[in-house]
Amino acid sequence: MAVNLFIPNESDIFPVAGVEIGIAEAGIRKAHRRDLTVITLSPGSSVAGVFTTNRFRAAPVQVCEAHLATGDEIRALLINTGNANAGTGEKGLADARQSCTELAKLLHLRPQQILPFSTGVILENLPMDRLIGGLPAAVTDLKATNWFEAAHSIMTTDTLPKIYSTQLQLSGKTVTITGISKGAGMIRPNMATMLGYLATDAGIAPALLKDICKTAANHSFNRITVDGDTSTNDSFIMMATGKSGVQIDSIADPNYNKLLDALIAAASDLAQKIVRDAEGATKFITVQVDDARDSDEALKVAYSIAQSPLVKTAFFASDPNLGRILCAIGYAGIHDLDVSKLRLWLGDVLVATDGGRNPDYQESDGKRIMQEAEILVRVSLGRGKTTETVYTCDFSHEYVTINADYRS
Amino acid sequence: MAVNLFIPNESDIFPVAGVEIGIAEAGIRKAHRRDLTVITLSPGSSVAGVFTTNRFRAAPVQVCEAHLATGDEIRALLINTGNANAGTGEKGLADARQSCTELAKLLHLRPQQILPFSTGVILENLPMDRLIGGLPAAVTDLKATNWFEAAHSIMTTDTLPKIYSTQLQLSGKTVTITGISKGAGMIRPNMATMLGYLATDAGIAPALLKDICKTAANHSFNRITVDGDTSTNDSFIMMATGKSGVQIDSIADPNYNKLLDALIAAASDLAQKIVRDAEGATKFITVQVDDARDSDEALKVAYSIAQSPLVKTAFFASDPNLGRILCAIGYAGIHDLDVSKLRLWLGDVLVATDGGRNPDYQESDGKRIMQEAEILVRVSLGRGKTTETVYTCDFSHEYVTINADYRS
Repeated sequence: MAVNLFIPNESDIFPVAGVEIGIAEAGIRKAHRRDLTVITLSPGSSVAGVFTTNRFRAAPVQVCEAHLATGDEIRALLINTGNANAGTGEKGLADARQSCTELAKLLHLRPQQILPFSTGVILENLPMDRLIGGLPAAVTDLKATNWFEAAHSIMTTDTLPKIYSTQLQLSGKTVTITGISKGAGMIRPNMATMLGYLATDAGIAPALLKDICKTAANHSFNRITVDGDTSTNDSFIMMATGKSGVQIDSIADPNYNKLLDALIAAASDLAQKIVRDAEGATKFITVQVDDARDSDEALKVAYSIAQSPLVKTAFFASDPNLGRILCAIGYAGIHDLDVSKLRLWLGDVLVATDGGRNPDYQESDGKRIMQEAEILVRVSLGRGKTTETVYTCDFSHEYVTINADYRS
Repeated sequence: MAVNLFIPNESDIFPVAGVEIGIAEAGIRKAHRRDLTVITLSPGSSVAGVFTTNRFRAAPVQVCEAHLATGDEIRALLINTGNANAGTGEKGLADARQSCTELAKLLHLRPQQILPFSTGVILENLPMDRLIGGLPAAVTDLKATNWFEAAHSIMTTDTLPKIYSTQLQLSGKTVTITGISKGAGMIRPNMATMLGYLATDAGIAPALLKDICKTAANHSFNRITVDGDTSTNDSFIMMATGKSGVQIDSIADPNYNKLLDALIAAASDLAQKIVRDAEGATKFITVQVDDARDSDEALKVAYSIAQSPLVKTAFFASDPNLGRILCAIGYAGIHDLDVSKLRLWLGDVLVATDGGRNPDYQESDGKRIMQEAEILVRVSLGRGKTTETVYTCDFSHEYVTINADYRS
């Protein structure tokens, strides 16, 4: 049961000039499931990526990083679901490389021009015969209008497809941004992974795109949490084809900020959709920490609240349990925190001040906020001027049910 | 439903010479509930304590620290359940001090010779009239044999009392160690708190007892986790009366190590009992990390496993889900971890090696281990010689049910 997850009409998804997508049924884990996606990019495109920090980096993540590091022009992405190719050692690396080699043959590219992605069960080898067998059909299917199909094709435990599309005007030209993501909250590393793909027909210099990709990730995919588990395969890729005729080569370009904001908004939407579809989620929670000395301490407090099982079960119960939130702030690891300067709001209701309950606070006001499907928790630390925001969901019976199910 | 929580017979609880305990019904939160406990110590006793690191330290914790810092001889402890006196600001501090003053009058002591402890709801003021009204009855009740009653009296959401008692021979004399603890896993900061009290009739120099208390806490109460939430009131107190005639003033004393080991064993037992009685627990999990470079990185990995909701739901489901454990190791924050040197055991079964599944591992072997009520997860990092062990439980439907209940 996703929380207010908006799915645009297919007619509102704008193709991105220079990007084509093809999908096939390879039968990697289940028959009759479209599980193989190929994305191609026109020559001259820029590509950048950020990847999981988990030390058990899956084989395709390692191959992506190696191929990006060659500096060769990336021209295609290959994504399979059903198997994560993680915890598979040297054989896994060889399989990921071979996938690229086989697709390169079909597309007349060099293997290092291809980025591979896998999501699904871990600790099992990729069924290479089926994967390779599916490639010709995916290549035959390549077309500009397959974004919606791709959003479906990359799903694993997701209940709904995640897709975003917008257009903006830059220097009188129309620039398109379209992206897809998947992941039921990075919370099921044997069956799930966070994947995000965002394409634009703006042209962006490779070094600049790398910075934008990192910035966008830090405002989006790196600001969501369901249970604190970081998958072995998480990847976020940005692609810029330049086909719109708009080209941005430096941050001094007058269009830079407008495009950056639009790309961050797109990444943020795709990331938040993952939280909205998180396993068992019934509420979407925004945790905003204001007046911190720096980003690091703001995030410590925000994640301490957002990852506390006690706080999350209280949200599930619509219980304005101030004690649990204050307690989570208290153990966030800010050793010189002066709790007497702290203020806490639920929505627009000031619930705690001066190190304790706001004398004017009425439990009924807190209860009213907690019953909503979207809740803002706001903390002022009274220490500085930095704000950070993270997004999470509540913690329900359904979460335990889903994750206690035997892998099947 | 506690997991193998051993409750000794009342006849196996040895009183500690020099310690008396009195209990009363003060009606602090509920009527007809023994909720007030007084512990007195004979003159010449040493007392040491370790307290929560939460920045929202409850008023009694702050008063305990202040009274211990005076250097005056601590002669009594006052413990109430039903109200934590936390998040109560200046009024809370005044209330905690007044509690000590009133008990000091009855016992003919100075207020700073008393340590106060509170556990129960937070953000509400102590009902001082009822607390003070209950003190005379508690003092009248003082006797050496009230340990079992005290274990019951300090309970909040605990389903069972937690008590430990042993005797050992030092230099031909019998030394007694008896202690109690409470807490359903530090997991319900509005209604629960970890409290531990351990007394011995050995004599221990105050500075030495302080070190022993910290060491014992680091091997016990600081090695358990249910959900990572650290309460505002957590306290662990060690008391040494000297009445056995055995006196230890330095680590050079030939009896020191034997007594230290016995005290650590006692604290460890009392701490593990909290995990065994954790809300919703159906399994007791020991996570042992071997061959780490230092204690810090061993604990990072151990807690990363022990606090992962995904790992804990897999234990609940008896699912030998290796991927979730490997993933938790991977994101524990050891940036130069070489996963190819890592080995993982479930019980005596080697399940992962060389960065992936052990080729000889049979799922049926893993399943057999996971179905037991007590499970050992052992990781070798292959980096050094340090071992650390933490204790946790699984994560069940019952946990969500208990914590999603409205506070009542």
